[in-house]
Amino acid sequence: MSLQPSTTTSWQEQVADKRKRLQTLIPPEWTIAPVPDEQVNVLDVPQTCGLLTDRELEITDTPDVTVLLQKLAKAEWSAVEVTTAFSKRAIIAHQVVNCLTEIFIDRALQRAAELDAYLKEHGTVMGPLHGLPVSLKDQFPIKGLETTMGYAAWIGKVAEDDAVLVQLLLRAGAVLFVRTNVPQTLMWGETYNNVFGRTLNPYNRTLTPGGSSGGESALISMHGSPLGVGSDIGGSIRVPSHFCGLYGFKPSSHRMPSYGIVNSLDGQDSIPTAIGPLTVSLSGVIAFVRGILNLEPWRYCPATIPKPWSQDDYSLRNRNGGKNLCFGIMWDEGSVKPHPPILRALTETKNALEAAGHKVIEWKSLRHSEYIAVARSIWLSDGSEDYNSCLTTGEPLINSMVPDADPNDIPAFRIPRQPLTAYQLWQLNKEKKALRKAHLDRWEATAAETGTGRPIDALICPVAPYAAVPHGQTRSSIYTVIWNTLDCPGLVVPVTKVDPAVDTKPVREVFWSEEDRVVYDMYDPEIYKGVPVGVQIVGPTLQEEVVLGVGEVVDAALRSA
Amino acid sequence: MSLQPSTTTSWQEQVADKRKRLQTLIPPEWTIAPVPDEQVNVLDVPQTCGLLTDRELEITDTPDVTVLLQKLAKAEWSAVEVTTAFSKRAIIAHQVVNCLTEIFIDRALQRAAELDAYLKEHGTVMGPLHGLPVSLKDQFPIKGLETTMGYAAWIGKVAEDDAVLVQLLLRAGAVLFVRTNVPQTLMWGETYNNVFGRTLNPYNRTLTPGGSSGGESALISMHGSPLGVGSDIGGSIRVPSHFCGLYGFKPSSHRMPSYGIVNSLDGQDSIPTAIGPLTVSLSGVIAFVRGILNLEPWRYCPATIPKPWSQDDYSLRNRNGGKNLCFGIMWDEGSVKPHPPILRALTETKNALEAAGHKVIEWKSLRHSEYIAVARSIWLSDGSEDYNSCLTTGEPLINSMVPDADPNDIPAFRIPRQPLTAYQLWQLNKEKKALRKAHLDRWEATAAETGTGRPIDALICPVAPYAAVPHGQTRSSIYTVIWNTLDCPGLVVPVTKVDPAVDTKPVREVFWSEEDRVVYDMYDPEIYKGVPVGVQIVGPTLQEEVVLGVGEVVDAALRSA
Repeated sequence: MSLQPSTTTSWQEQVADKRKRLQTLIPPEWTIAPVPDEQVNVLDVPQTCGLLTDRELEITDTPDVTVLLQKLAKAEWSAVEVTTAFSKRAIIAHQVVNCLTEIFIDRALQRAAELDAYLKEHGTVMGPLHGLPVSLKDQFPIKGLETTMGYAAWIGKVAEDDAVLVQLLLRAGAVLFVRTNVPQTLMWGETYNNVFGRTLNPYNRTLTPGGSSGGESALISMHGSPLGVGSDIGGSIRVPSHFCGLYGFKPSSHRMPSYGIVNSLDGQDSIPTAIGPLTVSLSGVIAFVRGILNLEPWRYCPATIPKPWSQDDYSLRNRNGGKNLCFGIMWDEGSVKPHPPILRALTETKNALEAAGHKVIEWKSLRHSEYIAVARSIWLSDGSEDYNSCLTTGEPLINSMVPDADPNDIPAFRIPRQPLTAYQLWQLNKEKKALRKAHLDRWEATAAETGTGRPIDALICPVAPYAAVPHGQTRSSIYTVIWNTLDCPGLVVPVTKVDPAVDTKPVREVFWSEEDRVVYDMYDPEIYKGVPVGVQIVGPTLQEEVVLGVGEVVDAALRSA
Repeated sequence: MSLQPSTTTSWQEQVADKRKRLQTLIPPEWTIAPVPDEQVNVLDVPQTCGLLTDRELEITDTPDVTVLLQKLAKAEWSAVEVTTAFSKRAIIAHQVVNCLTEIFIDRALQRAAELDAYLKEHGTVMGPLHGLPVSLKDQFPIKGLETTMGYAAWIGKVAEDDAVLVQLLLRAGAVLFVRTNVPQTLMWGETYNNVFGRTLNPYNRTLTPGGSSGGESALISMHGSPLGVGSDIGGSIRVPSHFCGLYGFKPSSHRMPSYGIVNSLDGQDSIPTAIGPLTVSLSGVIAFVRGILNLEPWRYCPATIPKPWSQDDYSLRNRNGGKNLCFGIMWDEGSVKPHPPILRALTETKNALEAAGHKVIEWKSLRHSEYIAVARSIWLSDGSEDYNSCLTTGEPLINSMVPDADPNDIPAFRIPRQPLTAYQLWQLNKEKKALRKAHLDRWEATAAETGTGRPIDALICPVAPYAAVPHGQTRSSIYTVIWNTLDCPGLVVPVTKVDPAVDTKPVREVFWSEEDRVVYDMYDPEIYKGVPVGVQIVGPTLQEEVVLGVGEVVDAALRSA
């Protein structure tokens, strides 16, 4: 990256300039009439604003990424018209939920035209994602464009190279067109920073779309993009997918190519970031993972494990072809009881699986709190030196996601710690290793209960103890962090929506912890009315194909229930 | 581990007691007549001492592990007689080169008898290593036995569990019978500690067998074990294999199961230890790696990548079946020129490969010194806190491997450093990542020169700039550390022996570095006369099967040259 220094201007001036430049990238003819603040649900704005043609609505409302890819491959829809449709819808979404950080539709349309010409000339697609518009979280540098990642100090940082994933997406035939908002430091389950401000949940703008890939989840749930790429160190793909009714997948940390991304806590390799998709359909998750693996990312990213896509694993060949599987179910992690709609989503999933001939057994909570504690100790081991190194402009560190928060009011899980030594970090790595062994042994031991001769084929659990919460109300992402500590792949599948008529608030007087009480007090069915609820499907480390294959089994069971 | 405290006795007394207990495990009837110190080459002692029967000599002299396994599987040789033969020969070796730390032949013979009974009853072997005696570096705990790893403070530490690799070796049918010596701290290319003293090179006892798996290399080169398991963080399998004329293999760091081992710098995961075999034949390397992978070690060790053995990769299916390959050759790493016999071994390998129809192109040195620098900074980042935590008895830290060294005379690469913070360690991880990317791009770029349409199939390079050196003379293991920093698998294949008639000392007046001059000055053909010389075959990260398949091509070319 080369820094084009902004020298003497204040960070506020730099931010104002950046916002202005972003604004100028919105074609004036794509500006919509203002939507009043009182309209909290903005999902129908693309239909009602009058900007999209019927055909553009048909394209962008296509619920299955595979169908999009097929129509593109057959030239039923050209890449230019698909790119135009999603670009317009992305711009519409941005005007109501503030989800974009970089807009480069001109490049995208030029690229789409090249793809159309390629298809016409060769009679075949350029790659498995030919013509598919793909949005990117603001961590994936593209040559010639800025990547600010929500830091004022990074305004003007123009990338000299594409991130490896960007190179591979282009080789796969994707059309990149926008990048999306993140929280400052990335280490939050919401999306707010001093440069671009706050991203809102299209289901209810008083709620957060989650984070840190919250620009993506807001955008995709409005069908402003069919598929986006996020990153997840503690839930940053899965929480926003759950909050916005999407499919989201966090692979194991070294399966997808990370080289060349910008990141928080860069060089922290103990519990690292994983890259994965958020999208409108499970077919999109599979197209992305298979498409990238088939391009042999380990030849370009030194941190990617050379493990080719396994069609056998994906088709559950050694798991009875996906018939009569056995699932574990974890209703809670033992310290914070999920809200009623979360438990209902688990129950519906369990019932659907049993109705489809599968077995579901209880997963007993064991050492989950230790998984959280070790992750937090590792991530905070630099004593915030990484964050501070990005705040050189005088821009303040954001301590709370509450709108107009008292800057000194810091949630417990964000309180800075004293820096550790390298030796102390090594001791944490040893703890992590012992915890991973305990989990692995526990998983293998389920073979005695499954009746299949195998351990459980996957574990079903909450993504969070709540659905999308009001801005500033997210807590530590315990249900997702567990699987980062253990480096297990986790897939989010949407199940239902909060229904105040059935998801009534139970009376509880005994609590498992202070956190349990706080989370209980947050629940009011009217606040969460109508927002989506997903479940998380977890598998063994680096068995991405198994999780996706099992995910299709779960999804099919839910859709036919 | 439970510590059986030795309370008030001094460390010297504890060491004396440990040595005495070790001595009592040698059956008196297996004691041989003393070999005079003047006899520096002791390779023929097993033949001349009169202790082994002709059949025991035939068994232990078997040059190919596959042949041993076949004869065991057919019950031509019983597990008990094979175990007896290698046990006797190990005890003989120990008496002349001091290679053992734990002796448990009673257990081994009982186990061998069980294996014989199993084969008789079932008509089939228990596993792929049925009846094979396997020795272990003193890092692999076995339930009920001590593991001291050369630290006085660890005397009396009795393991409560088998390391995962021990469990899998037993499941594979192996017979474990001895553990072998290491240097204090493990971070040396020689083998000497305060508990067990110094291990000697059977080719010439005035020379080191290398380290840190030097007990293994000394033992196996005397055929006191057909196959042993070592570990390698900077050359600790490859240097001793090279110094003792063995095949030795360092896989990538997360391919073989490490859970449950004891280690130096435990929790240091930036450039971690890799586990692998040292053995008398390439077939032994392959039997070990394939045998362990086929037992799915990732189900028991959370640090092991679930990547099954690939027969396609091993058979070089996508590499023209092993015909007309293209190799890179690295004559030196740019700062230290190897001694004449090392360069001759490379030349002979190149000639043999070309004679067999392969192409060999030059690998240009680029950033090798940086690979070494970052590794050293990472390993020393704890400011020696890990070492010091093991020296609680008052036992001194060994600063030099020179016999009767001045304890204050510390080689440059061992000088302790100030401890780093976790944040500083993260910065080193970033450096490492950038270096791995530079290497990967360099490797891929060779595709333009190979003529095969692929990058080079493997790289041939020195294992060290010298053959086995006099005790105390090893330097930093630059030629091996490179591949630990890059996490590339490296296979050592023996090529030749030092011949003073051809390996004459060249005149050099210009040196690449001070280290280059020091290493040049070390060379005197008479010192190294007759000791073995190997080469190193390096491949891409986690492509162990490719390196082994290519290794067979190289080995066959050398044997038929």
